[in-house]
Amino acid sequence: MRTSQVLIPTLREDPGEAEVVSHRLMLRAGMIRKVAAGIYTYLPLGLRVLKKIENIIREEMNRAGAQEILMPILSPAELWRETGRWEFYGKELLRCQDRHERDFCFGPTHEEVITDLFRREVNSYRQLPMNCYQIQTKFRDEIRPRFGLMRGREFIMKDAYSFDRDEESARVSYQKMYEAYERIFTRCGLNFRPVEADNGMIGGTMSHEFMVLAETGEETILYEEEGTYAANVERAEVLPPASPSTENPLPLETKHTPEMKTVLDVCQFLQVTPAKLVKTLLYQTREGEIVAVLVRGDHEGNDIKISRLLNTAAVTLADAETVTKATSAPVGFAGPVGLKGVKIVADHAIRAMKNFIVGGNAQDTHLLNANWDRDFTVDTFADLRQAQAGDPSPRSQAPLVAAKGIEVGHVFLLGTKYSQAMDATFLDDQGKDTLAIMGCYGIGVSRTAAASIEQGHDAKGMIWPVQIAPFHVHLLPVTNSEMVQETTKSLYHSFTDAGIEVLWDDRDERAGVKFNDADLIGAPYHVTIGDKGLKNGTIEIKHRRTGEVVKIEPSRVLAYMNEQLAQFQLPRV
Amino acid sequence: MRTSQVLIPTLREDPGEAEVVSHRLMLRAGMIRKVAAGIYTYLPLGLRVLKKIENIIREEMNRAGAQEILMPILSPAELWRETGRWEFYGKELLRCQDRHERDFCFGPTHEEVITDLFRREVNSYRQLPMNCYQIQTKFRDEIRPRFGLMRGREFIMKDAYSFDRDEESARVSYQKMYEAYERIFTRCGLNFRPVEADNGMIGGTMSHEFMVLAETGEETILYEEEGTYAANVERAEVLPPASPSTENPLPLETKHTPEMKTVLDVCQFLQVTPAKLVKTLLYQTREGEIVAVLVRGDHEGNDIKISRLLNTAAVTLADAETVTKATSAPVGFAGPVGLKGVKIVADHAIRAMKNFIVGGNAQDTHLLNANWDRDFTVDTFADLRQAQAGDPSPRSQAPLVAAKGIEVGHVFLLGTKYSQAMDATFLDDQGKDTLAIMGCYGIGVSRTAAASIEQGHDAKGMIWPVQIAPFHVHLLPVTNSEMVQETTKSLYHSFTDAGIEVLWDDRDERAGVKFNDADLIGAPYHVTIGDKGLKNGTIEIKHRRTGEVVKIEPSRVLAYMNEQLAQFQLPRV
Repeated sequence: MRTSQVLIPTLREDPGEAEVVSHRLMLRAGMIRKVAAGIYTYLPLGLRVLKKIENIIREEMNRAGAQEILMPILSPAELWRETGRWEFYGKELLRCQDRHERDFCFGPTHEEVITDLFRREVNSYRQLPMNCYQIQTKFRDEIRPRFGLMRGREFIMKDAYSFDRDEESARVSYQKMYEAYERIFTRCGLNFRPVEADNGMIGGTMSHEFMVLAETGEETILYEEEGTYAANVERAEVLPPASPSTENPLPLETKHTPEMKTVLDVCQFLQVTPAKLVKTLLYQTREGEIVAVLVRGDHEGNDIKISRLLNTAAVTLADAETVTKATSAPVGFAGPVGLKGVKIVADHAIRAMKNFIVGGNAQDTHLLNANWDRDFTVDTFADLRQAQAGDPSPRSQAPLVAAKGIEVGHVFLLGTKYSQAMDATFLDDQGKDTLAIMGCYGIGVSRTAAASIEQGHDAKGMIWPVQIAPFHVHLLPVTNSEMVQETTKSLYHSFTDAGIEVLWDDRDERAGVKFNDADLIGAPYHVTIGDKGLKNGTIEIKHRRTGEVVKIEPSRVLAYMNEQLAQFQLPRV
Repeated sequence: MRTSQVLIPTLREDPGEAEVVSHRLMLRAGMIRKVAAGIYTYLPLGLRVLKKIENIIREEMNRAGAQEILMPILSPAELWRETGRWEFYGKELLRCQDRHERDFCFGPTHEEVITDLFRREVNSYRQLPMNCYQIQTKFRDEIRPRFGLMRGREFIMKDAYSFDRDEESARVSYQKMYEAYERIFTRCGLNFRPVEADNGMIGGTMSHEFMVLAETGEETILYEEEGTYAANVERAEVLPPASPSTENPLPLETKHTPEMKTVLDVCQFLQVTPAKLVKTLLYQTREGEIVAVLVRGDHEGNDIKISRLLNTAAVTLADAETVTKATSAPVGFAGPVGLKGVKIVADHAIRAMKNFIVGGNAQDTHLLNANWDRDFTVDTFADLRQAQAGDPSPRSQAPLVAAKGIEVGHVFLLGTKYSQAMDATFLDDQGKDTLAIMGCYGIGVSRTAAASIEQGHDAKGMIWPVQIAPFHVHLLPVTNSEMVQETTKSLYHSFTDAGIEVLWDDRDERAGVKFNDADLIGAPYHVTIGDKGLKNGTIEIKHRRTGEVVKIEPSRVLAYMNEQLAQFQLPRV
C-alpha cells in the first residue's frame, strides 16, 4: 500500500487527551481517532492490526473446535431479567427503548442470549459439548472512559460460551480454551502470563485471566519465580500464619492519641511498627449490614475475599457518618473492644497476634495490649487481606514476586449459574432433564492491540510483533532519483507478489520525516533505499525492535525478508 | 466440517412466523434464529454465507482503491444535529442516552461521522480523491420488521463514502463504485440489474440501485428489453404526451353520481374508460400546505415526483377531514373546478385531455366535459405520475417492461449536502477553501444473502450460487458400511486438503433425511456415497441447481470437483 493512498494522519505533537502510551501512540500514528469519550474510529492502520488479531483468534478458536456464530448487538431486556442482571448490572449497561417502548440493552456480554439459544435448539447430551463464539462490537458505559483502547466504552471482543453435560467435561472444554488462549497470545507475539482470577460479576467457580506483562498495567499479579502458581493480586490466597505469638497477654491500656488517625501517625507517636497495630475497617454489604473487618496495620483488606466470606455481592467501606454511628467516634479511632451490634471478622494474621494496638472507639483514643477472645470476640478468622510480594506462595511457599499486567483475556468456568436461572436443560443418557454446565471465554481484541503497544514501544514509537504489525515492511526511498524510485517500485512489487505486506512511503518528504513516521508506526522491518547505498550495491534493512541494521545486495533483499518472516505463523489477511 | 459438530438445527415444518421464502428457508435450514422482532442470531451456516459476501465486497472495494476503516456503532447526537438529521430522521433512528445523559444514536448510516473525520484530518486537494468503507452492524427501527433478513432492524451493511475535489472527479469515483458493485454482485452469482433511483432521505443529485431480480421482490423496476435504460418505478420518467386531444370543448355539465366514489364506480356508471377521468388527489406537504394534484383516471400519483415539484421533503395524502374542509364534499368527489385556496398542479397527461370528468366538490356530484384553462387554472404541468409497463422509455421511446426486484445496493452522488452542512472543506490548488463533493455507497450484506435465496430456491429448499454457498460440497454417506465410511472419510480429507469446503453429514440418519436436509441447505454439489454405487465403481454427484446427476469413479471425484470450482472466482475464507 502506498502512503499517499491511505489515510495515515500522523501527528508530530503528543495529543493532550492521551494519558497512556498506547493511546498517545495510536493517535500520533493515525491509527485511531476519537468520536466521543471512549468511542473511536479505527483508521486503516489500526483496523489492520485488529483484523490480524481477530484472524489469529478465529483460526485458534476453530482449531479448538469452537463454532463461529454472530449474536445481535441489541439484547432484549426480558432475557436479562431472567438472570436478574437487568437490575444487577447497573449503569455500565447501556439501555434503550425501541419505538414500541420495549427495553433493550447494547450487549456487553452474551450469556443470556446464548443460553436462550441453547435451551431452544439443543435437546440431547449427544449434541454436547458445544462451544460457540463470536467476534463483535460491545459496549460498557464506563464512568470514566480513558486510556484510549485500554478502557474504551465501545470495543471489540471475542466471546465464547461452552455447554457441557457434566463438570468433568466442562473442565475439558475450559482447558481447551485455556490452551487456545495460550496459542493465541503466543501467536500475537506477546509476553503474557495466565493467572488465577476472581469470577466477579460474571459468576461461576473458577477463572483465569491472561495478562500481558507491561509496567503500565493497571493490574498487579503475583507469581512464583520458579514454579507454576500465578494469580491476580485480588485473587491470590494468603496462607494462615505459621505459628502464633508466644507473648504473654498484658493488661489492656487506654492511650490518649490526639489527632492520630492513620496507622503511620499512631506508629510514629507510639514508636512501634505497623505490624503491632490492628486496623478495624467498617464495611457495608450490598444488603446494608455493617461488619467490622480486622487486618494487621501493614496489610490491606481485600474486598472480594471479604464479600465472599460475608456471602454478599459486594462490600464498600462505610462512610464517615456510619462509622461514627457504629463506634461513637470519628473515623480513625474504630476498634473491636466494646463494639456493639456489629459482627467482627478478622484476617488470619490476627490469630497469631498478641498485645496489639487498636482504636478505642472514642476521639483521640487507642488501646494498647488488646487480645482477641479476652477483650473481644471474633466471629470468623479467614483470609481477608490482599496478598503482597514476598508472601509465601500457597502452592510452594516460595516467596511471590509482583508484576504489572494488562488483562486481555479471561476464561470462566460458570457452572450452572445461567443454565439454572434460564432453565437451560438437555436430556442426559438416561432421558433425564439436566442443567448444562457452562463456561465463558473473552478476549478484548481492541485492548490486545493497545496492550501490545504498552509492552512494545520506545521513545520513538511503537514496536509491533511481526504477527500483528499493520505491515511487515516499511519501504523508505530517501530521494527522488530514478535509480532509487525504480528500485523501490521493483522491490514493492516483488514483496507484494510474495505475500509480504508493505507500506511504501511514496510521499515527497524529507528522509528524516519518513524515518520518524516509520519509527512511530513501528513496522518490524524498515527497508531504506538511498543513492549512496545503491551505488555501493546495498540496501539497508533495519530491525525496528533491536535497531540492528543490515546492508544487503538488492537482489538478496526479498530472500532475506522471506527468511525473516518464515519464523512466524502469520495470520491470513 | 462434520454435521455432528456444528449447530444446524433444521426444521421439518414451516415456521409460522415466516412470510417470505428466504425467511422460511433460513429458519428451516438452521441458518438464523430470531432474538426479537427484526433481530437475529446468525448460526454457523448463515454466518458462513455472510462472511463470503463480505469477503467478495472487501476484495472488490480494495481493488477499486477504497480503504477499509471502522467507525463506531454509536454516533453522538451533536454530529446529527449539524446536518439536521437528528430531528429529520424520525423514529427509525434508535436513540439512547449514556450515564451522563448525553444523546447518542445507533448509527443507521455514517455520513455525519465520516464527514467529521474528513474535516478534521484532510486538508489538501492532494489527499483527494479519498474513499473509505466499513462493514458493520447497523440498526433501523422499522415500524413493522418482517421478512427475516429482507427487512430486519439490526442488519449488516457495507457503507462507503467518497470525497472529491470537484464534480468531475466525483463522477469518476461514483463510476468506480458502480463498476465495483457490478463485479461484486456478479461474483456473488446473482442475476441483478442496476437501475436509476431516487436519492430519497440521503439526498444528492444522482443514484442507482442494484436490484436482484426475483418475483418476490418488493420493488418494481422498468427497463428497455433491448436498450440500456432501467429505473426504479418510483424514479422512471414519463414523457409528456406526444399530441394533444383535438376534440372541441363541450359545455361543462353537472351529473348526479350517487355513492360513486371510486374511478371504477364512476366509469361503470357513466359507461366510460378510466382514461376519460381526472382524479383530484389532495396532498399535504411536510410544511402543512394542501395541494391538489390532478392525474388521469388510469394513472397513479408518484409521491417523490410530487414532493420534488413542491420542493418539500415529503407529501402524504390528506386525511378525510382535510379533504372535506378543502372541497366541502366527502372523499371521492374532489375536483378542480371552483376549488378555492388550494394550489392545483397536474400531470403532463392532463395537458393532452379535453372534455374530461372530474369530481364536483359536492356530495354525489361529478362534472362532465371539464377543460383546463376554461374551467380551472393549473399552476404547473409536470411529470407527476408513476410510470407503468408499456410507457415509452425516456431514452429510446421503446415500451418499458416491468420486473420485480430486491434492492441490495445503492450508490449516491451526494454533492455538497453533508460537506456544506458540516463545513467540510479542503484547500484547492489555489489555496482556497473548497467544499468536498461526496458520494456514498451501500450494500446490504445480510439482505444480499436473503435476496440470493429469493432468487434461487425450489420447493425443496435453497439453491446457492457456488460463490456464496455455505459449503461447496455436501458429502452424503448413505449407509454405515465400512466401505462407505472409509470412502467418505478419504474423500472428505482430499476435498479439505484441496481447499474445497465440505459439509460431511456424519449423522446416524436415514438416507431420506440426509437428502432432504441437503436439498434444504442447498450446497451446489451433493456427493452421495452408497454401497451399490461403490460396488459398481461409482459415486453420484448431484448438481443442486439443475438436478443433473453424474456417476463418477471414486478416483476421479476430486478432479471433477476441482474442474467445476475452477470456473468461479471464489472469495477467500
